Amino acid sequence: MPELRQDPATREWVVIATERAKRPDEFARSEKKEEVPEYDPGCPFCPGNESMTPPEIWARRGGGGEPDGPGWTIRVVPNKFAALTPDAELNREEEHGFFRRMNGFGSHEVVVESPRHNVNFCSQPDAKAEEIVLAFRERYLALEKDKRYRLVTIFRNRGREAGTSLEHPHSQILATPIVPQHIRQRLEEATRYYDNHGRCVFCDMIEREREEADRVVMDEDGFLVFAPFGARVPFEIYIMPHDHHATFGEIPEPEARQFARVLRRILSRLNRSVNDPPYNLVVRTAPFSDRGEDFYHWHVKIVPRLTTAAGFELGTGVYINVAVPEETAAFLRSVRP
Amino acid sequence: MPELRQDPATREWVVIATERAKRPDEFARSEKKEEVPEYDPGCPFCPGNESMTPPEIWARRGGGGEPDGPGWTIRVVPNKFAALTPDAELNREEEHGFFRRMNGFGSHEVVVESPRHNVNFCSQPDAKAEEIVLAFRERYLALEKDKRYRLVTIFRNRGREAGTSLEHPHSQILATPIVPQHIRQRLEEATRYYDNHGRCVFCDMIEREREEADRVVMDEDGFLVFAPFGARVPFEIYIMPHDHHATFGEIPEPEARQFARVLRRILSRLNRSVNDPPYNLVVRTAPFSDRGEDFYHWHVKIVPRLTTAAGFELGTGVYINVAVPEETAAFLRSVRP
Repeated sequence: MPELRQDPATREWVVIATERAKRPDEFARSEKKEEVPEYDPGCPFCPGNESMTPPEIWARRGGGGEPDGPGWTIRVVPNKFAALTPDAELNREEEHGFFRRMNGFGSHEVVVESPRHNVNFCSQPDAKAEEIVLAFRERYLALEKDKRYRLVTIFRNRGREAGTSLEHPHSQILATPIVPQHIRQRLEEATRYYDNHGRCVFCDMIEREREEADRVVMDEDGFLVFAPFGARVPFEIYIMPHDHHATFGEIPEPEARQFARVLRRILSRLNRSVNDPPYNLVVRTAPFSDRGEDFYHWHVKIVPRLTTAAGFELGTGVYINVAVPEETAAFLRSVRP
Repeated sequence: MPELRQDPATREWVVIATERAKRPDEFARSEKKEEVPEYDPGCPFCPGNESMTPPEIWARRGGGGEPDGPGWTIRVVPNKFAALTPDAELNREEEHGFFRRMNGFGSHEVVVESPRHNVNFCSQPDAKAEEIVLAFRERYLALEKDKRYRLVTIFRNRGREAGTSLEHPHSQILATPIVPQHIRQRLEEATRYYDNHGRCVFCDMIEREREEADRVVMDEDGFLVFAPFGARVPFEIYIMPHDHHATFGEIPEPEARQFARVLRRILSRLNRSVNDPPYNLVVRTAPFSDRGEDFYHWHVKIVPRLTTAAGFELGTGVYINVAVPEETAAFLRSVRP
């Protein structure tokens, strides 16, 4: 019998399609991967090709070296094909009071995570994961100082099916002058929950998930990692900090380092259990203006791309999930990171 | 310079990524298609295989014949791997007042559009398109009588990249006991617009799009077909009836026939311009209880799957569209249906 579940934070329903559900191990990808070289002379993110990107915004060069030359271990550059650009003027136009448009003002940065072209996030040492997450934090805090921005979205796409065009390991950071409707709706739901219960819905979610335990994958270093009750797609995973902070920018450096280690471990479990699945990873945070607020709680969502959303999902926002979250969690617990 | 545009009906922003935009003709798919046979002995939707589906709900047999035997020209059956089933009891459970779940109660029907395995919607005669749309209408009206349902969603997936598992031409009809959050938010936005302006936002959209004209593809037989101002993906298309009806069930039969013919023609233009793209088609309608309401306006959305949404889209709901709607519309106007 299929089951309808409601996500307690978004109030969106999901169908857990037991009739056509697969066992978690059936999602494993069998394709052999092409060998990817450690260095690709044509890749704009490989060392020596620094001039193929716009001038760098930030980098770490432990052993010295000039900006926009080799020697870096991590490098942040503006996206050459930016979706939004800080060169645009921040304006707002209306046609007949109906169609509203703005210049594409914003910031779109790429974090080139490593000089090595073929490395996987989860197969690197903890120190590397920490370097990446600390770069996220550093850039978040720098962008927060610019009063024209409202929200920063940090995300990472792995694999062609997840929309990556460049193989070289990288993440992206977008700062927008708007808070999208999609985010506003989530903030409103969280506010409503707070009004009704006097508590943060995500703090409550952590408590309930720990109590029920069967969807928990890892609970260590201050972070709860779980397959959410209302998971929309197979192997969807949340990483939620026990400590309540509304925005990503509020986490202290030690917590950022812990997050990095937890992230590396869960990505490693995912990698081993489903054989390097394509995925999108998103840091969900409240806008800058909600810094310190009680009703929202930053967290990370990992969305593997193992199935294809079709007309029903597009038309109703209700996802049909062919994996049972409790089974997914048990499977992920069973593999060693 | 990229441009941010706001959809007047949903208030969601979209990025028109001019920096990386492609010309409309660059989206054409070059792959040669495999030859698909007219009849597939293993296909559950091919004539003679009627016993491979659950017993039929409705069919047309112009030349006679028994239910669940051959002779039909169109046939509606329950989905064998239903996401929702009418056999479930309509219940509602809560765990600790936090996690809410229901049995997967609902109805999930498949419209097998033709006995021919390899036919494309748009390459058939108008009479066939009318037969299909009249079946949608018939089933919608039948499901509306069941007081346990709130909303009917009619959709069609074409092509593997759009989530189809079966090649045989078919559509799906889902009736749900809930109105999903995604739909409620759209109804609320439409209500707000109505409160502010005393007019339906979609009636106004039709008026504005006709005035500006550069996004209009077809305007005939009572329907406006256009690339919306805030299109989220390349070649996204709206089909909007000039006549205001909140729900799909309100359209009279002659209007349903006109809609069928317009649908066939725009799908044909799409087919010729992008070489049979994968797409999802969704009939957007208000729930049954909004029958006759002034603030909503049923319409159809065609969403080709030519690009892949990635982390930014998933995280913010803001799509980065690499096609400019005005250029898409001009291109679609230039091909003959």
